Amino acid sequence: MLPHIFRYEISPHVSVYLECSGILHSSQSRYQKIEVVESIDFGRMLVLDGVINLTERDEFMYHEMLAHVPLFSHPNPSHILIVGGGDGGTAREVLKHGGIKKIQQVEIDKKVIDVSKKYFPSLSQALDHIKVQVLVKDAIQYIRETREKFDIILVDSTDPVIQQSEGLYTVSFYRDCLNALTEKGILAAQVGDISFEATIVLNVFKKLKEVFPVVRAYLAPVPSYTVLPYSFAFCSTTIVPEKGLGLSRFRDDFQTRYYNPQIHHAAFALPEYLRKEFEN
Amino acid sequence: MLPHIFRYEISPHVSVYLECSGILHSSQSRYQKIEVVESIDFGRMLVLDGVINLTERDEFMYHEMLAHVPLFSHPNPSHILIVGGGDGGTAREVLKHGGIKKIQQVEIDKKVIDVSKKYFPSLSQALDHIKVQVLVKDAIQYIRETREKFDIILVDSTDPVIQQSEGLYTVSFYRDCLNALTEKGILAAQVGDISFEATIVLNVFKKLKEVFPVVRAYLAPVPSYTVLPYSFAFCSTTIVPEKGLGLSRFRDDFQTRYYNPQIHHAAFALPEYLRKEFEN
Repeated sequence: MLPHIFRYEISPHVSVYLECSGILHSSQSRYQKIEVVESIDFGRMLVLDGVINLTERDEFMYHEMLAHVPLFSHPNPSHILIVGGGDGGTAREVLKHGGIKKIQQVEIDKKVIDVSKKYFPSLSQALDHIKVQVLVKDAIQYIRETREKFDIILVDSTDPVIQQSEGLYTVSFYRDCLNALTEKGILAAQVGDISFEATIVLNVFKKLKEVFPVVRAYLAPVPSYTVLPYSFAFCSTTIVPEKGLGLSRFRDDFQTRYYNPQIHHAAFALPEYLRKEFEN
Repeated sequence: MLPHIFRYEISPHVSVYLECSGILHSSQSRYQKIEVVESIDFGRMLVLDGVINLTERDEFMYHEMLAHVPLFSHPNPSHILIVGGGDGGTAREVLKHGGIKKIQQVEIDKKVIDVSKKYFPSLSQALDHIKVQVLVKDAIQYIRETREKFDIILVDSTDPVIQQSEGLYTVSFYRDCLNALTEKGILAAQVGDISFEATIVLNVFKKLKEVFPVVRAYLAPVPSYTVLPYSFAFCSTTIVPEKGLGLSRFRDDFQTRYYNPQIHHAAFALPEYLRKEFEN
């Protein structure tokens, strides 16, 4: 029997073909097509509208970098908001920090949570933790209306090119996030592939710069997303990541596979072609 | 007409398919099959025995990082040996450094030089520079016999998994390199994909550590090679890269697209899963 092939584009004329042993789940939620595919080299994969959302093999790179860079930049984060992230991987990383009092998770698609609970228990079990409160709701509306204040907001959404996530990449959403942050608060968001021209990514950062006094780009490889490092945004009113105000909390018993204090600093070094455009 | 497809494996069950508009050259030299393929998204590609050796689109990442990290770590490099690198890309980068007196290039396959001169003039024109002396010879033999001393040796070869390059990844070759280096000399070598287990890469570093007192791994993405950062070795008797002893020479008029002083330092930060294994 021929293996199944999962194909995705990394640029218009370059595609990656992954051999898979089977499709474990396929359904259509109100928002998107949800599939769980068993691939041979990347393990089990969560696929949303045909785009890989996570793979067992490399999700640690993405989730660790989205969570730990802002959390270790903050002196004492205790209240965290996760926008999206219905698989639970980001919550799992946040829970590694001892001082956490509450994680408010706002995921629009209940079906993503349900599928993750069935097929990705090592990630989704974090959602059952006593400190995690899961709300199934549009995060754009939630952030506009909430009176809560958060030390850290983590935007763990699909890409800016995906239509239903468009609202998470707007100046008005970023303004609402700023309002929902404490004085030392930090917003971190996944932004996208820095490919050679990086127009889409730079446009997102331009919007962030309209709202936040401190805006930095940081990078990490996420091989199942693309061949070039993936970009994340670090935004705040005053706190800068290079001080690593919480890094004294990183000790030998803090378990990571990608993140460490050297990576914390190194991730902010941008290739020259990107640095020039980013600093304009 | 259907486009040509160039396929390469990034792991046993994951392949990348590049659409190409044509094959410009195909020949068999004494050592390897040499092809020049015109791809749509990565531009013109030099393919050796079916493996992408360089693409117009991303060769700058590879060549800049192989050359500038060691050269900017050295206070005043003037005599450089390039092992392999018949396309001329590494020589082009070395020539950007003002203090260079001589570049000795030793490439085993004259056909690679000839094909590069025809199809990759923006790289290969460096080989015609008055400071560059090209020798068509086995570098293993050359380095064993030479009485010259070099400030920097750059090993710009094919991968350790490629049979004909095996001899460039041996303790005896590294010992001969050490003998051919000046007291403050530096060896930099491309090593390979750091993929998730990285056994092959770690094995190369183990051999380097048998010979050189200072051995560091550094990373850069080379998208046409693989989805995870590519690794390079920095080796010396005394000089450490973090001091960046030559970095004061990096000024605004030094033209790079990937390398800059922030990248110089950041490239040495290893992901936790790799750092643990590397430091053992």
